[in-house]
Amino acid sequence: MSRLVMKFGGTSVASVERIKNVVRHVNREVAAGHEVAVVVSAMSGKTNELVAWCKEASPLHDMREYDAVVASGEQVTAGLLALALQQAGLPARSWQGWQAPVLTDDGHGAARILSIEPAGILEGFSRGEVAVVAGFQGVHRPTNRITTLGRGGSDTSAVALAAAVKADRCDIYTDVDGVYTTDPRIVPRARRMDKVAFEEMLEMASAGAKVLQVRSVEVALKHDMPTYVRSSFDDPDHPGSGTLICKEEDIVEAQVVTGIAFSRDEAQITLRRVADKPGVAASVFMPLAEAGINVDMIVQTISQDNMTDMTFTVGAADYDRARALLEKTRSDIGYAAIVGARDVAKVSAIGVGMRSHAGVAARAFQALSQKGINIRAITTSEIKFSVLIDAAYTELAVRTLHTLYGLDKED
Amino acid sequence: MSRLVMKFGGTSVASVERIKNVVRHVNREVAAGHEVAVVVSAMSGKTNELVAWCKEASPLHDMREYDAVVASGEQVTAGLLALALQQAGLPARSWQGWQAPVLTDDGHGAARILSIEPAGILEGFSRGEVAVVAGFQGVHRPTNRITTLGRGGSDTSAVALAAAVKADRCDIYTDVDGVYTTDPRIVPRARRMDKVAFEEMLEMASAGAKVLQVRSVEVALKHDMPTYVRSSFDDPDHPGSGTLICKEEDIVEAQVVTGIAFSRDEAQITLRRVADKPGVAASVFMPLAEAGINVDMIVQTISQDNMTDMTFTVGAADYDRARALLEKTRSDIGYAAIVGARDVAKVSAIGVGMRSHAGVAARAFQALSQKGINIRAITTSEIKFSVLIDAAYTELAVRTLHTLYGLDKED
Repeated sequence: MSRLVMKFGGTSVASVERIKNVVRHVNREVAAGHEVAVVVSAMSGKTNELVAWCKEASPLHDMREYDAVVASGEQVTAGLLALALQQAGLPARSWQGWQAPVLTDDGHGAARILSIEPAGILEGFSRGEVAVVAGFQGVHRPTNRITTLGRGGSDTSAVALAAAVKADRCDIYTDVDGVYTTDPRIVPRARRMDKVAFEEMLEMASAGAKVLQVRSVEVALKHDMPTYVRSSFDDPDHPGSGTLICKEEDIVEAQVVTGIAFSRDEAQITLRRVADKPGVAASVFMPLAEAGINVDMIVQTISQDNMTDMTFTVGAADYDRARALLEKTRSDIGYAAIVGARDVAKVSAIGVGMRSHAGVAARAFQALSQKGINIRAITTSEIKFSVLIDAAYTELAVRTLHTLYGLDKED
Repeated sequence: MSRLVMKFGGTSVASVERIKNVVRHVNREVAAGHEVAVVVSAMSGKTNELVAWCKEASPLHDMREYDAVVASGEQVTAGLLALALQQAGLPARSWQGWQAPVLTDDGHGAARILSIEPAGILEGFSRGEVAVVAGFQGVHRPTNRITTLGRGGSDTSAVALAAAVKADRCDIYTDVDGVYTTDPRIVPRARRMDKVAFEEMLEMASAGAKVLQVRSVEVALKHDMPTYVRSSFDDPDHPGSGTLICKEEDIVEAQVVTGIAFSRDEAQITLRRVADKPGVAASVFMPLAEAGINVDMIVQTISQDNMTDMTFTVGAADYDRARALLEKTRSDIGYAAIVGARDVAKVSAIGVGMRSHAGVAARAFQALSQKGINIRAITTSEIKFSVLIDAAYTELAVRTLHTLYGLDKED
């Protein structure tokens, strides 16, 4: 017998009929002798409706009240799934964030889980009970107020719960059947991976792959929690395979490059002729950080006459604010000109094999250049490199790299 | 400065726009220098939707899970109203049942409030904060699970909260502007009462008037909490008058009969030739009570040959079950025949003045008989009498009694 956490997202619980389908998945695992906790999201569309009401009530809303309102979505699904499980003859009870409890900090709207006290849920297991836990939510103990973890937070709830109850595995049921070498809508020959290392998944999620929330992969990595991404649309009695996110050493045949990720929501800003001296980077990036603007790639040209060009990317949604801020602080920074581009995309190749293989990125630059794709900026890390290109070339670049690193599915 | 509890029902919070109208009512009271707690119901229609989902998930649902699901409706409204109040510049925070906390017994689906611990809300008052409390819900402490109070329970939440915070008054905002001498849809000349005694309101609610939940009036009576029924559709800046439910001695000009109530959802059962001996009533009514069937009027004819006829009423919805049960226990009870009627109605006249005026009911019997209305059964209590009649005569009987006791509005 092992212990499982199963997580079902919004489309998997979109109606009572879909919830009954979830019951069949749970039933299969219980029948196999496992102790099961299920983490659920809100019915799809519900969270958006609740968020819209909050905005209508107060455009600059108090996030504590926002959390109380939007957490109700998962509360409903948890109760309904518990009822549907009971109806199928499986003892079950629902646990809301404050009941489990899932303790978080007070970062309302984007809180971080501090700990989950699993005693009640474990007692339930010993009575043969399925625990149905409302995802996405927790409680801040000192104030006794409901918190939410931010969009996609139910993935994190599930992995953190799996760690807290010392589960053998965390199964994330989603509307895709696993993690692909890249987005199959762009590369029809993309392959589902059987296994991917925690570190690779973390880089892929950060680089734009939307299968899992970044934070959930961090938690899985921290606790070495094997996390299985699979489809909730499979026949519950004969489910197919998914992708196991696991330790690097559990992957026998590692590839040099595992996957290609991309993000189109990028914008580029270049400051021309900035003084190349200590403190200048701080004068650029501190005001941006204080304004909550996230800076991603940062590239600096080689200095000439003690002057340099500084290029970096921000989210496209932050572009106007970032530019306005930099123009306001121009005299503090001291630059000759500011230029920018909205229509840029970041394409990344990820693989733990890069650590032991030199020249992986160089081959990419050559291949992209042969297709006439201009590289605006490059960044590399131990297991990932990213190129910034014109957005119009995104699909071409992704397909080129996918083929280059031998990721295409065979016929 | 005084302290007020204001309660708004489902139609008053049916949309964010309606919630903003509630803000204007609250704002008026805060501007007048009052400390205010607001109790809210779910947006109208929400509770029905949630109940339907529960039934779809599990027809014989675990009431603990049902409560977790349906309580979410009030949670949403409480958060949205707190946001809308803040937006209008009024400090506010929401309190869910488990946060206040509103402690109840574990009668899930129809729990009774045991106590409300007001410390947090009172601290909020001292900071100038409006407390927005989710109605209809509480928490059972030993199990830490959410409970609900049953339909209309938000009225009870409001009155109990008013008692707990020692409010000066509890204002129930509803879609009518007060308590009427009878239903104005049946008697156009019905008058809104300025004041009505707790005991009278209790009898009227029990006898079928639907303005307030019976339990809320019991709580108001127990705690001597002046409760003001008024309209949420009034202009918030120039609200009209409502009906104050208060102590009998606060009503200067008491009428003999204050109001006429009626209930059409009645069914009559008569057992012919039952032995008139100790224990026979128990053999009839105990099985019904055990089956959860509520018996209302009970009338027994004068005994002949130690045999009697026993007539009583049950809710129309329980009629078939009650008859089947009595037929099953026929040999235990021992009766010659069972006869029944579905299409019956109960019409009641209520007034504390009956205590000191003899012959009040007798005048009614005469007046009804003159209109050709046959009385099937009569019961009387200290401040109320009820007649059971054919349902077709309901309107005629109500109008006759309304005129008889001088309740018609003058032109």
